[in-house]
Amino acid sequence: MNKWKAVYPVDVEPSKIGGVNVDIITPKAGIHEKNKDRVLIVLHGGAFMVGEGIGGLNEAVPIAGIGAIKVVSVHYRQGPENRFPAASEDVASVYAALLEQYPAENIGIEGCSAGGILGAQAMVWFQKHNLPRPGALGVFCAGFDFLRSGDSKVIATIFNGVSSSTPVLPQIAYFEGADMNDPLATPAVSPDALAKFPPTLFLTGTRDMMMSDCIASHAKLLKAGVESHLYITEGWGHGTVWNAPGVTEATDALNVIWSFFDSHLGK
Amino acid sequence: MNKWKAVYPVDVEPSKIGGVNVDIITPKAGIHEKNKDRVLIVLHGGAFMVGEGIGGLNEAVPIAGIGAIKVVSVHYRQGPENRFPAASEDVASVYAALLEQYPAENIGIEGCSAGGILGAQAMVWFQKHNLPRPGALGVFCAGFDFLRSGDSKVIATIFNGVSSSTPVLPQIAYFEGADMNDPLATPAVSPDALAKFPPTLFLTGTRDMMMSDCIASHAKLLKAGVESHLYITEGWGHGTVWNAPGVTEATDALNVIWSFFDSHLGK
Repeated sequence: MNKWKAVYPVDVEPSKIGGVNVDIITPKAGIHEKNKDRVLIVLHGGAFMVGEGIGGLNEAVPIAGIGAIKVVSVHYRQGPENRFPAASEDVASVYAALLEQYPAENIGIEGCSAGGILGAQAMVWFQKHNLPRPGALGVFCAGFDFLRSGDSKVIATIFNGVSSSTPVLPQIAYFEGADMNDPLATPAVSPDALAKFPPTLFLTGTRDMMMSDCIASHAKLLKAGVESHLYITEGWGHGTVWNAPGVTEATDALNVIWSFFDSHLGK
Repeated sequence: MNKWKAVYPVDVEPSKIGGVNVDIITPKAGIHEKNKDRVLIVLHGGAFMVGEGIGGLNEAVPIAGIGAIKVVSVHYRQGPENRFPAASEDVASVYAALLEQYPAENIGIEGCSAGGILGAQAMVWFQKHNLPRPGALGVFCAGFDFLRSGDSKVIATIFNGVSSSTPVLPQIAYFEGADMNDPLATPAVSPDALAKFPPTLFLTGTRDMMMSDCIASHAKLLKAGVESHLYITEGWGHGTVWNAPGVTEATDALNVIWSFFDSHLGK
């Protein structure tokens, strides 16, 4: 995270929004004029168990810096202490509070791994609770089509030299007791829910065990008539982009992410 | 090809356009009103050696049918009898002749494998010969970043159970003696040439040995500021889409292709 701060200097302010703990990240160089009325919500990865703090900042700092935009990193409730849909509730609380300050179309939501899954789950949660659709969604190294497995688990095992230890969601404590056939947990089971998604960007790498989830979810969104984009970094693994400050491929990926939000968020 | 005709009934008329042999494919159900002033050029695959006739029709018939649009499948010159840039010349001859009938922005060009490579090479050829940019480009199971190899050659070998026999381009007779560092042969070497590409769709499968070429080329186009889209079918190999008439994944891919051209070609 300090390495990201060296590339993209930011201020980090721990705070509470909608009763939920967050970090508010502001670029030291200032927020760009066009972003004055925009904000990004970042949902960290960590298998719904870990990732608060440094994990979230690793994902939030670079996009705040490259976009010159305010970013809110959410410390949503996780397992094993908490159960689905606690994290969806927390994202909704933060989002609802931000809606008092920002138009929905000016709010972007992105997350990596568990955070990407949670972002997609939150879209369905918002639908159920009559919250307006945000302007754009980023789902990185993740998908929402959990009932399939896919080539990428084998590819990642071979190319990374270690077995992919990703558990399927029902094996994660956070989802204990959840109905995984409910679109609130598995958005892909409902084409109607998918059809109401905002424009979405998927990002993954050829050695990410969740590449297949990304690909399959991208295809399902397109099939549901949603604007969806896919970007894959050759040779990179799960979440690698957040561990490579200043590396060309990471900067390229960040530019793709920011360009996506910049062209899809309201102004 | 007869199986495609069963799904998408068409008429096929061998003809010559700009002095080059072509097949003109017209849907029996008629050309859609919005496509009266549009045409698609299809460049068949076949390693710059084979693929004329049935190969081209396998790719041209389904898109003509699903799009309700006229398609011209080009019998471009190949090796070993002919050498680069004979095929680029032939594509340009057909394109120039069609420009007398259609505005450039109403003409789409797509190709699979060698045809996808050729389509990209043709973009640079057009630039050099002052032909206007077409409305949209489809590069399927191919790319134009040939100096790299990529994960997908290994992935394809493992998942398909046979070694990927794809030669690198300089090993193909058609490219004998060509300067592969010239953007006319390898568009990726010139970001300036890439920046003038039309909106482009890449399509591949997780078991396609050219998936990495697709991914890398997509990334390069985005980096050059071009609108680029990527679609990957989980578990499919090189050109599989053309061998699966009526199969859901093929229909999904065809819908993505047609939706791309429909939203990017002029009307």
